[in-house]
Amino acid sequence: MLDKKYLLPQDALKLILHNLKPGCLTVETIPIEKAYGRVTAEDILSPEDLPGFERSTVDGFAVKAFDTFGAKESSPVYLTVKGDIAMGAIPHFSLSNGEAASIATGGMLPEGADAIVMIEHVNVISNDLIEVLRAVSPGENVIFRDEDAKKGEVVIKAGHRLKPQDIGALAGVGITTVKVFKQPVVSIILTGDEIIPHTEKVTPGKVRDVNSFTLAGLCYENGAVPLKMGIVRDEYDKLKETVQKAYEISDIILITGGTSAGVKDLTAKVIDELGSPGVLFHGASIKPGKPVIGAVCNGKPVFGLPGHPVAVYICFELFVKPVIHHMLKVTDKNFKKTVKAKISRNIHSQAGREDFIRVYLEEHNGEIWATPLLSKSGLIMSLVKAQGIVRIPSELIGLSEGQEVLIEIID
Amino acid sequence: MLDKKYLLPQDALKLILHNLKPGCLTVETIPIEKAYGRVTAEDILSPEDLPGFERSTVDGFAVKAFDTFGAKESSPVYLTVKGDIAMGAIPHFSLSNGEAASIATGGMLPEGADAIVMIEHVNVISNDLIEVLRAVSPGENVIFRDEDAKKGEVVIKAGHRLKPQDIGALAGVGITTVKVFKQPVVSIILTGDEIIPHTEKVTPGKVRDVNSFTLAGLCYENGAVPLKMGIVRDEYDKLKETVQKAYEISDIILITGGTSAGVKDLTAKVIDELGSPGVLFHGASIKPGKPVIGAVCNGKPVFGLPGHPVAVYICFELFVKPVIHHMLKVTDKNFKKTVKAKISRNIHSQAGREDFIRVYLEEHNGEIWATPLLSKSGLIMSLVKAQGIVRIPSELIGLSEGQEVLIEIID
Repeated sequence: MLDKKYLLPQDALKLILHNLKPGCLTVETIPIEKAYGRVTAEDILSPEDLPGFERSTVDGFAVKAFDTFGAKESSPVYLTVKGDIAMGAIPHFSLSNGEAASIATGGMLPEGADAIVMIEHVNVISNDLIEVLRAVSPGENVIFRDEDAKKGEVVIKAGHRLKPQDIGALAGVGITTVKVFKQPVVSIILTGDEIIPHTEKVTPGKVRDVNSFTLAGLCYENGAVPLKMGIVRDEYDKLKETVQKAYEISDIILITGGTSAGVKDLTAKVIDELGSPGVLFHGASIKPGKPVIGAVCNGKPVFGLPGHPVAVYICFELFVKPVIHHMLKVTDKNFKKTVKAKISRNIHSQAGREDFIRVYLEEHNGEIWATPLLSKSGLIMSLVKAQGIVRIPSELIGLSEGQEVLIEIID
Repeated sequence: MLDKKYLLPQDALKLILHNLKPGCLTVETIPIEKAYGRVTAEDILSPEDLPGFERSTVDGFAVKAFDTFGAKESSPVYLTVKGDIAMGAIPHFSLSNGEAASIATGGMLPEGADAIVMIEHVNVISNDLIEVLRAVSPGENVIFRDEDAKKGEVVIKAGHRLKPQDIGALAGVGITTVKVFKQPVVSIILTGDEIIPHTEKVTPGKVRDVNSFTLAGLCYENGAVPLKMGIVRDEYDKLKETVQKAYEISDIILITGGTSAGVKDLTAKVIDELGSPGVLFHGASIKPGKPVIGAVCNGKPVFGLPGHPVAVYICFELFVKPVIHHMLKVTDKNFKKTVKAKISRNIHSQAGREDFIRVYLEEHNGEIWATPLLSKSGLIMSLVKAQGIVRIPSELIGLSEGQEVLIEIID
């Protein structure tokens, strides 16, 4: 009911991004075989023409196209076989009129040849004579010397997350190293007097650290390096000291817990003292995740994430992930895995707030149905059981049973 | 035109899977912090109740619910504050009728309390007196001691690829190690007398290795470990020796190139001699990728992939990826990133064959249009430029301009 004073998540995010320079991470040069998933820091130009010579795209015979004109099954054209072209070799002869040479896929065209007749359209009469059963036009079944990439052409743009086939293409043009943005280091600080390491036995009142494991994995998935800073008691001096240290050695700081009543002002105070402009929002119109703190301190983003495991996940997706992409200057369009489904029951939502409902999916008679996991956001297992999330925008007051919704797949 | 004698890709894949035992990889026990993306080899049970005690989900006051019945703004209920519950501590008192205790989110309920009144619904009159403005029912704003996970309950099923939040949940129940399938080792063997390492200068007739870089990245993305075996000349003895070595040290063998006329029988022969049942199909009704060889040799899958970079990519997606998932016994439903788009021009396809057309995507007036990259499949850059792939099923003879299609996003 207090949501009116809070920003919608997209507006809260804009505040953060507005205070962060895109591409603010340092640039490093690394071998291409280490660059899978990394983001290019500059346009990459082809240093040469690819393939650099005319190649056949099929198995067959290299010919002068005009020699084949008019050829058909009923009136084939006869050509003299000048020789074989070995794979990977420069042909040691050229073709004159009326001549052909056998060639395999990827082979280099001999001088004088301008097309390839596929093996299927040839009758081999003898070692030095073939019948061509179909005409080819100049350039047919040939890759030209700069057809794949021209020297100086942009092969891959800056701000692109390198996919397997991109690395393949770089290898193809002989590029061995690539300039990429350094992976942002993300400090993860856990606060809360009730939190204990996952290796310890719980006693009543205590709970084990869940969030540092979820956050570390989300960092890995998004091209960042997690740095666990441990569990800090809810005390000003200790939190301040840890946050200061994190600020010195990392690019992004995440503090979980300590955002709700009692200690919430402590976290906000410590963040605010770290640098300017400091805290930009304290609370957002979302559920779960409402008490989230967003800040930028001297160019470094700092987030106070609620302690609830589900809220941590949602806040990472809404705020931390786009901030990482912004810092890496990613320009790729971000497609999400989605599926259309019908919602299996009514869900109430509050106008002015974005709700993120975990769902599991079931198929009935070819239709996908999404069933809300309406459990408390403090429950860890609801996120384990969820296969997707449905977002209820702030202008809606809920969803009706049977309504078609777009589910964002969690994986 | 020869496609009638070839299997459709789904039938070819079935042949391979039928000859492979699911979950045939060895099992290893690893720390949970190393288990992101790994596949569980057994059901994981919770060793304890979670949270193990009754916790508050809000900031407020622990109460006996029946004490608040009938409370409203106009006629509040007055309760005596027995004390504060410190985070992470066992309350050192219990509640009697008419008593309350201040509690923060995640705090442990004192004995006698069965609900929490949110701080927003309370007026604090003095250190030891509050006005409750709204009634709560028993259990309200409380997580029960086994509500998140019951001791002995399956927390995560076998065959599940561990997501960040799953690892968080395992930490939460105090699980420090997990049994997962060993990541399959995938040998990558390049054949072709024209192939040179990417670090070498090309001379006419030669081309650099592209495919080992694409394949290595695809292995990483699919939870496998690539093992580059180098470039092998198109000679029986050398290929046989390398394939035999790969067979001894890896779980899956990929041989690229050497599937088309001339040397194609060589690759098939070497594979067939490796073990039984040997080659299961040589060629499939797909474009690109038609000359693909699929085999299982003494329980290990072996593929002969065409040398064309685009065909390599398509064949990995169609055959190698599902084989990896089968060997890892993955039971998760595999959702794909897709987007609906309109195709920007007519595309012809051959009935009886599945065509995989690379497309790039553009938005015009809120509609997404997919433009086919109709380049030769030997061109590397077409896959770099592509943002998605549209599949033309074997029963269609093409797509018409403006037709709505489902694009599988490449990323």
